[in-house]
Amino acid sequence: MKAARILEYKKALVLEDIPVPDIQPDEVLVKVAACGMCRSDVLLIDGFFQGYGDIPPPVIPGHEITGTIEKIGSVVPKVAGIEEGDHVVVAPGWGDGVCRHCMVGDTHICPNVRWPGFGPDGGFAEYIPVPARYVIKVPKHLKFEQLAPLTDAGLTPYRGLKKIRNAGGLGPDRVIGVFGIGGLGAYAVQYAKLLGAGGPVVAVARNEEKLQVAKKYGADHIIAIEGKSSEDVGKELRKATGQDKFDAIIDCAGATEMMQLAFSRLAISGHYADVGFIGDRIDIPLFPRVSGEQTFHGSFWGNNADLTEVMALAAEGKIQHTIKTISFDDINEYIDLMRDNKIVGRAVVTF
Amino acid sequence: MKAARILEYKKALVLEDIPVPDIQPDEVLVKVAACGMCRSDVLLIDGFFQGYGDIPPPVIPGHEITGTIEKIGSVVPKVAGIEEGDHVVVAPGWGDGVCRHCMVGDTHICPNVRWPGFGPDGGFAEYIPVPARYVIKVPKHLKFEQLAPLTDAGLTPYRGLKKIRNAGGLGPDRVIGVFGIGGLGAYAVQYAKLLGAGGPVVAVARNEEKLQVAKKYGADHIIAIEGKSSEDVGKELRKATGQDKFDAIIDCAGATEMMQLAFSRLAISGHYADVGFIGDRIDIPLFPRVSGEQTFHGSFWGNNADLTEVMALAAEGKIQHTIKTISFDDINEYIDLMRDNKIVGRAVVTF
Amino acid sequence: MKAARILEYKKALVLEDIPVPDIQPDEVLVKVAACGMCRSDVLLIDGFFQGYGDIPPPVIPGHEITGTIEKIGSVVPKVAGIEEGDHVVVAPGWGDGVCRHCMVGDTHICPNVRWPGFGPDGGFAEYIPVPARYVIKVPKHLKFEQLAPLTDAGLTPYRGLKKIRNAGGLGPDRVIGVFGIGGLGAYAVQYAKLLGAGGPVVAVARNEEKLQVAKKYGADHIIAIEGKSSEDVGKELRKATGQDKFDAIIDCAGATEMMQLAFSRLAISGHYADVGFIGDRIDIPLFPRVSGEQTFHGSFWGNNADLTEVMALAAEGKIQHTIKTISFDDINEYIDLMRDNKIVGRAVVTF
Amino acid sequence: MKAARILEYKKALVLEDIPVPDIQPDEVLVKVAACGMCRSDVLLIDGFFQGYGDIPPPVIPGHEITGTIEKIGSVVPKVAGIEEGDHVVVAPGWGDGVCRHCMVGDTHICPNVRWPGFGPDGGFAEYIPVPARYVIKVPKHLKFEQLAPLTDAGLTPYRGLKKIRNAGGLGPDRVIGVFGIGGLGAYAVQYAKLLGAGGPVVAVARNEEKLQVAKKYGADHIIAIEGKSSEDVGKELRKATGQDKFDAIIDCAGATEMMQLAFSRLAISGHYADVGFIGDRIDIPLFPRVSGEQTFHGSFWGNNADLTEVMALAAEGKIQHTIKTISFDDINEYIDLMRDNKIVGRAVVTF
Repeated sequence: MKAARILEYKKALVLEDIPVPDIQPDEVLVKVAACGMCRSDVLLIDGFFQGYGDIPPPVIPGHEITGTIEKIGSVVPKVAGIEEGDHVVVAPGWGDGVCRHCMVGDTHICPNVRWPGFGPDGGFAEYIPVPARYVIKVPKHLKFEQLAPLTDAGLTPYRGLKKIRNAGGLGPDRVIGVFGIGGLGAYAVQYAKLLGAGGPVVAVARNEEKLQVAKKYGADHIIAIEGKSSEDVGKELRKATGQDKFDAIIDCAGATEMMQLAFSRLAISGHYADVGFIGDRIDIPLFPRVSGEQTFHGSFWGNNADLTEVMALAAEGKIQHTIKTISFDDINEYIDLMRDNKIVGRAVVTF
Repeated sequence: MKAARILEYKKALVLEDIPVPDIQPDEVLVKVAACGMCRSDVLLIDGFFQGYGDIPPPVIPGHEITGTIEKIGSVVPKVAGIEEGDHVVVAPGWGDGVCRHCMVGDTHICPNVRWPGFGPDGGFAEYIPVPARYVIKVPKHLKFEQLAPLTDAGLTPYRGLKKIRNAGGLGPDRVIGVFGIGGLGAYAVQYAKLLGAGGPVVAVARNEEKLQVAKKYGADHIIAIEGKSSEDVGKELRKATGQDKFDAIIDCAGATEMMQLAFSRLAISGHYADVGFIGDRIDIPLFPRVSGEQTFHGSFWGNNADLTEVMALAAEGKIQHTIKTISFDDINEYIDLMRDNKIVGRAVVTF
Repeated sequence: MKAARILEYKKALVLEDIPVPDIQPDEVLVKVAACGMCRSDVLLIDGFFQGYGDIPPPVIPGHEITGTIEKIGSVVPKVAGIEEGDHVVVAPGWGDGVCRHCMVGDTHICPNVRWPGFGPDGGFAEYIPVPARYVIKVPKHLKFEQLAPLTDAGLTPYRGLKKIRNAGGLGPDRVIGVFGIGGLGAYAVQYAKLLGAGGPVVAVARNEEKLQVAKKYGADHIIAIEGKSSEDVGKELRKATGQDKFDAIIDCAGATEMMQLAFSRLAISGHYADVGFIGDRIDIPLFPRVSGEQTFHGSFWGNNADLTEVMALAAEGKIQHTIKTISFDDINEYIDLMRDNKIVGRAVVTF
Repeated sequence: MKAARILEYKKALVLEDIPVPDIQPDEVLVKVAACGMCRSDVLLIDGFFQGYGDIPPPVIPGHEITGTIEKIGSVVPKVAGIEEGDHVVVAPGWGDGVCRHCMVGDTHICPNVRWPGFGPDGGFAEYIPVPARYVIKVPKHLKFEQLAPLTDAGLTPYRGLKKIRNAGGLGPDRVIGVFGIGGLGAYAVQYAKLLGAGGPVVAVARNEEKLQVAKKYGADHIIAIEGKSSEDVGKELRKATGQDKFDAIIDCAGATEMMQLAFSRLAISGHYADVGFIGDRIDIPLFPRVSGEQTFHGSFWGNNADLTEVMALAAEGKIQHTIKTISFDDINEYIDLMRDNKIVGRAVVTF
């Protein structure tokens, strides 16, 4: 099969033919139809994660994976209802199955978690073995190139917003801010409309250009913050919504300074969910958090239940995408473009 | 001022001129602009509630009240922000302020609750005294005749659905059933769409006619159940949604037999909120509730927070109405029509 | 190995030597050290469940299973941390792993659930194959005969009370009633003390004798209801706690009449969790549920997370037991005693 | 009446005789029996809060207030059940009654909140007017000097822990850390035991001495952190509990460095509630919060419902105190001692 592999870190992927992998009795073999390209693939290739733990080459990157069932392991139970030819997405975050987090389905925060594309084979190849409980069946009318990014870019902000909703932070009289309108933010705006019970959704980003995407995807208001003070932003917000603070914020970037701005505009009893980590520091005043009883939720990727819910939305045509499909042979070219931040929307490799 | 009063139970209301009432220092005087007519007004007039506790005449009925602030009591704090001429709705369910329920704002389930229109003066009169903390300011562009029913018919199902949402029962992959499409159900359908996070909404009622209202207000599917078995309903549901059970049900009727049907179609881990009480019996099998871990939520009217949220939706034009405005002098005529179940939508007295 | 099997329904179990079963690659073989005896074993033997679905003999009953790891399947991941000789309890309720309930760990309400002892081999035998993710390691200082009943009698009321706690129904100013003091109720009293945040715990049962067990296990008050009216019970409760209604009730019996009494004593905004199903009907007035905003939670057995929490309490010596250990050869004798309701506490077969 | 007042900031309180204050129709007059002394009184006297908003002298400090009902305003409803001679505590945080927070009882985070002792008259005087809905009746057998600190020091950590519990962060298998064992921490340890469902409670402070108080009040383990690294603390924790991270932390100090240590020891999906604000900065790494899905809860003082629950615990004798009662004439002396951090436990002025 064709595969694009890291043979040496900080070098281009090597595209070559390798044997189709075997599967374990509790796994299925997925024939990859599409695999999204993510900034973290570039980080991996560039050796960034070597600081956190050694992943010895060869490595097949790619973690936004969708395709069809090619083969089914011998102990995969019939009741699981998986059949050859089924269309599936691959849930990321494979847990050990026994820890407290796995027990309630949060396999993605298992201390022994494995991520396809970061050690186990990823989706930049024609076939990939997947533990059977990490494939989720999807209707056949859905397009593979749209399904792929829903397993990460389109999953992560969904979970973040759900955390705020479940904590009671969304409602018709609550203003929701979506900070950072990149790959994740464009989905976040849509989920904010779906989960927000009618509350106004305000997209916030550095510049106007990305905000137009947010507008297109349903944001009720947009605010460009480049060069503006917290007070400036407050004034714009009041003009748009009648109040100068956000009741809920989902931060899709995690940049230290934007986070400081965002917190300065968070209302009493406000909820803040962060799914981004461009910066690596929370550095904010303490007292307003306490006296205003604010809550910060760290939120990471998503679990099988979250992904199933996202698939339900996709099946109903309730999610819009900005996708650029590319062919397998052009992977390295697009990794370079991504490194230079030159891709609008999500690039997806199709086979 | 003009007032329509019960002087004797089981007789028509007497329309006459009586003095404008005084207010206490912690009250405001509301000049009534519109007051909705509710089936419970008829029950009151017909003496139905005398079995539960004596309400000695004269009684001014009417509990769906909206109007303008005419006068403000001396100890109403300035920070409350109430001014003469403000448009307000009157929150029903005035609590004692000290019980456990009042402490968290659930004044409507206070053991010492007082309801305007059921003892304290109601809205079938030109003026009404209201404790200051039970008026909620609304934008002046909203129409009084639409605001009135939002304090009961348009409030009660909102709270019921919120209970299900807060208990984790709604989501993109959950089918919501709205049972009973009368005054409350027509609003319930709209709230199910707003709170349901994209989950399909199915309206269920005896006959097709009322279901068309549900359809108009956004129901994804409708099912008429007259003469159908539980299995029949299950088949129709599967055809519409792909599954033969509801994950969540809001019951706006509370009729014993429809409740039996509804529970027979409730899925594993399903949530059932009941806001109606046409029947007065829950009579259902126990084992499926236990083995399927189902939850039943009794839900009653709504509190100030709920009403504020409904007002936020109204302010954004997110609620549709079927209203018939009538003049004060025609009250008795419409009470008779209501007794005979001959009114479509909500009748609202305007002044 | 020795096994006690149903060869024909409505006959005594047949004790004989049969081959030790094989395991699948994702299973472990557990050497049974102790297995609790439950009323549902008697029901199974007596053919009761044949009405719900055919379980063809031979059947090895027994679902309260604990023992040691004898063998480990080839695909059980090392990170699961299971080793030969480990002490384990067997979590009941083996799900398909793919349904919405399994995805969040509620495998016990999976539509395709399998229960050891009700089809798959149970614990009335020396060895049993168990899917690896359904064994939970426990410290070796715990006694097997105490661990066994904690997988059902000592698990079920824990989940029921947790449902009430998670719904906000427990607190220092809330009176908790434990209705029905049999095998489950004796544990329920202890969990009510542990989860109740200091709220008074009142045990309620027909007669004084069983209530003494509740008293011993920490109930603050006891009320015998034989021959008493709802008002009588209310008066006793007021004398004991200062209020005549319960804020939360866990019903360990599910008998129709006791449930009627219990609901008549449930306070405004009260929570009711039922884990028993001796009767098979909920037949109660509707209006007080609605106007008092009461919640009914069906709760069934427990999941891996619940069982792990119960094990944490056991490890700290925080659970007391009334256990009667019996030898394998006496199984039939004790099934007869159980059928005649002549066993105090829990009978446990040890090997 | 006797009163101790700020006539000029940064000077000693002036003790003099002033007229007994009048009450409004919706207020009661409380005859102060005891008033706790709090570090924030010293901050007020020393002019610290002048930076946040001008409170013009004369000011009567004191916000931990308990006493008896002396007089009742004319519009206080009879159903409130308040009578002359009743023992009461004064709930702090008087809201405007109309904002979203007041509507659900969170009057203490109302944007228009008023605090007795910080503008409105406080408890360092023989009488104080209080809005009727901010007095909570207590049984007469409770000691005033113990009741006083329960309105702040003994209330604040209760709310913080409740936030963690309600978010699902406490359970038998979760290790709770109480960081900072001063006035609040000594109560926090007790609440952790009451709310923790059997989970082990570990008190953490700089030095051994204060930790002995925690031990006395029920902490299962104690860790002195002076001069220790995060790894050191982890090792001690593992020795005590079997795991090297906390599943839940309540921080009663809010010191920047201790917070850094605490977060470095917070487990995956851990909850952190902060009620202290000695430092004024949260300055911690971001990525572990996100990848570990941790939650931070700011928690401030408490509302009427929280205080009622604390009173329920007090009524049952479930709270222990370290109290030093002092006479009114010694107030200034003890303010000096407090400024120098020389008081063990809580100083309470009695009349």
